[in-house]
Amino acid sequence: MAPESSTRPPRHFQRELGELKQRLLAMGGRAEERVHAAMKALVERDLAAVSEVLEGDAPINLLHLEIDTRAFTLLALQQPMAVDLRAIVAALKINTDLERVGDLAVNIAQASERYLRHRPVKPLIDLPRMAELAESMLRDALDAFVRRDPALAQRVLDRDDLLDSLKNQVFRELLTYMLEDPTKIEPSLDLILVSRHLERIGDHATNIAEDVIFMVEARDVRHHARLDAPPTIQ
Amino acid sequence: MAPESSTRPPRHFQRELGELKQRLLAMGGRAEERVHAAMKALVERDLAAVSEVLEGDAPINLLHLEIDTRAFTLLALQQPMAVDLRAIVAALKINTDLERVGDLAVNIAQASERYLRHRPVKPLIDLPRMAELAESMLRDALDAFVRRDPALAQRVLDRDDLLDSLKNQVFRELLTYMLEDPTKIEPSLDLILVSRHLERIGDHATNIAEDVIFMVEARDVRHHARLDAPPTIQ
Repeated sequence: MAPESSTRPPRHFQRELGELKQRLLAMGGRAEERVHAAMKALVERDLAAVSEVLEGDAPINLLHLEIDTRAFTLLALQQPMAVDLRAIVAALKINTDLERVGDLAVNIAQASERYLRHRPVKPLIDLPRMAELAESMLRDALDAFVRRDPALAQRVLDRDDLLDSLKNQVFRELLTYMLEDPTKIEPSLDLILVSRHLERIGDHATNIAEDVIFMVEARDVRHHARLDAPPTIQ
Repeated sequence: MAPESSTRPPRHFQRELGELKQRLLAMGGRAEERVHAAMKALVERDLAAVSEVLEGDAPINLLHLEIDTRAFTLLALQQPMAVDLRAIVAALKINTDLERVGDLAVNIAQASERYLRHRPVKPLIDLPRMAELAESMLRDALDAFVRRDPALAQRVLDRDDLLDSLKNQVFRELLTYMLEDPTKIEPSLDLILVSRHLERIGDHATNIAEDVIFMVEARDVRHHARLDAPPTIQ
């Protein structure tokens, strides 16, 4: 293997790394679409659209496997250093996050399927706001990855508190409905679950943003660490 | 960098890889301990113990950073091939899973703190069973990693359905309590959350088990893929 990797021109490597990023963007777009479709189906009470989300997981799972394989191949064949190594490892982690976002779209559709068996608990206002916020965080985190833009990544981190406070607001409101009317308990539980799933999508966007900051600045912002650089990596 | 890495003896690399695995085991032990402590505090209604879990996240976060740095260093300096490369990437992924398990212990403690403000809804039987099952899955998944044992990893995957059915049983029972008595709604919600957190700990064990099977057999069991080996990795 070694001779092959050392004769491979850097331009070739950069092109493959560029392709890896494009596939990751495609995966992100697909994951976001599925979250969007699940929430639209819930708001519009469209059971056929719910079923489409429930059954449409295969393309994103294939992308997940493809991206993992690409990243492994780059690691194995190219023996990358420094910022490129961090970019490939970030890609592997981001790939996992995006796959989970796809799973969460399915979870939202599962909760919606149950919810739509009941009469509406209330007009859905805050949940679509949460979804919009989580989707924009995901989009910006991926843009930050491709453009190597830590300032944009930081703005993703800053929005996580807002998502959290929306989740708490949804919870308090639904609890009131449940206490007033027992027939609303079961459907309200599913709306609470949807809010948790959206919160977790925001968490995945946050993970991606942290990976971007680590990749670009070799600085670990997780756990508020104060490592200026991982000690042994150049 | 290249001359240094090529002069490094393989024995040195294997020792560092062994240390990486030992640190990962320590991290897993710590994560499991915290889940166990959170559940014990809930069952024994021990608010002081709940607070200890809430405040004790720092050691696991430090381990997370340390393991990430070790894995990066091995990737950057040693240019590993084939099974070693897969082991290091698996370590990076497992590290992320274990850090999330630590977060979930905190989430269990947060729900417990709220739950303990109320009178008990019911004797807790199924939740401790879920916790025991999730902890044993985590333990076996990590053993499978260190021992490179795909059969043990497979047995972890086989137990996930049982955890899922326990979760559904907990949900149905608590729903009955909520419908009968509105004062039980709020505390029951927190128990439902605890069951979801335990389910997610099982999901992380499942992720780890899948990574082990990929590492040992270069076969991807995620998404029921039928790739005998990633095409370009030897």
